Amino acid sequence: MNYPKGSIKRSQSVQSPKASPKSPKQYGNRGMTLEKEIVESNSYYLESGKAVIHKKPTPIQVVQVDYPKRSAAVIKEAYYQRPSTTDFNGVYNGLYIDFEAKETKNKNSLPFSNIHEHQVNHMLQVEQQGGISFFIIRFTSRNETFLLPIRPFIEVWNQQFDGKRKSLSYTFIKESGYLIPFTFQAKVNYIDVIDRVYITGGDHDESK
Amino acid sequence: MNYPKGSIKRSQSVQSPKASPKSPKQYGNRGMTLEKEIVESNSYYLESGKAVIHKKPTPIQVVQVDYPKRSAAVIKEAYYQRPSTTDFNGVYNGLYIDFEAKETKNKNSLPFSNIHEHQVNHMLQVEQQGGISFFIIRFTSRNETFLLPIRPFIEVWNQQFDGKRKSLSYTFIKESGYLIPFTFQAKVNYIDVIDRVYITGGDHDESK
Repeated sequence: MNYPKGSIKRSQSVQSPKASPKSPKQYGNRGMTLEKEIVESNSYYLESGKAVIHKKPTPIQVVQVDYPKRSAAVIKEAYYQRPSTTDFNGVYNGLYIDFEAKETKNKNSLPFSNIHEHQVNHMLQVEQQGGISFFIIRFTSRNETFLLPIRPFIEVWNQQFDGKRKSLSYTFIKESGYLIPFTFQAKVNYIDVIDRVYITGGDHDESK
Repeated sequence: MNYPKGSIKRSQSVQSPKASPKSPKQYGNRGMTLEKEIVESNSYYLESGKAVIHKKPTPIQVVQVDYPKRSAAVIKEAYYQRPSTTDFNGVYNGLYIDFEAKETKNKNSLPFSNIHEHQVNHMLQVEQQGGISFFIIRFTSRNETFLLPIRPFIEVWNQQFDGKRKSLSYTFIKESGYLIPFTFQAKVNYIDVIDRVYITGGDHDESK
């Protein structure tokens, strides 16, 4: 597979119209690059009629609101809440798609501390309903992004409860997941992987 | 169809654990009763393994955040944003489900002013991808709740652009939609309608 190394990082983060100078820095900032590229890829999918997949808004608990006369309500006190599901969901070709994006600077593993148990439970529920659920995992230092389906993930995830595991290894993700190709129009072209893996039931080894 | 008139209104609004006394009143308050009952029905669907359908968080644009030491980030200035999609989505039996809930005190119509064009566009996109998209519409004064698929809806919706229509009539909704049964465990048991209409391809007239 031709994977244009180095080209992803360069073409990021300048473009998003949503990154206003007013926006405060957030503790979740680490994952923003991958997230932005997925949002952009989703825009391309939407505009080209290929898929309808959106990022869910961040849940915020509103405590106090002012209602100034003749202008919009101003939220004066609010708190970020932990999302109860995943970041992204939608429909592609009649299939329900549901996934979470994770990015790490580590070279050889993704710590489980990045992943919340309730999200994993949600992903299992989705799969039991016949939906397609997976992680998109980026190793920034390697400039590689993988689609890891919930099934292989869950086997390793469950090992942490015996104290055996605290992370997903790069090797495991590479072997059980699928490298997501970079394309000009969809920087994180995960629909391409869905086509090969879930629809045509593609050979796993081909994707490496 | 046995439809226990009067029983829905009485069993509302007391139960939701999210309705804290701190919560400010919102201009969107009119739709809260139906919304809460749908959220409760979704909880039942989730717990019984019947479907995985969630309400999306309200999108909020955050302008200013404080980061006090040793405690959670406090949002100090933020604004409600207009949702770009629908209120609810998820997966049932392998089907992508996407809908918007609307409630009116009017007896004979639902004004189009309650419905945003970008939501309608989203629902059409969903349908083109093979998803199932519909409105859940409640006439509170009649205590009747209908599921109205996007297809019959769109025909009347488009007539507004000729200046012909400004609302959906109750008669139209009753004829083109499906009465949603009230059940003890799912007060707005729309999955029952989906089973009849979309899965078994049920006879339309049967539902009235």
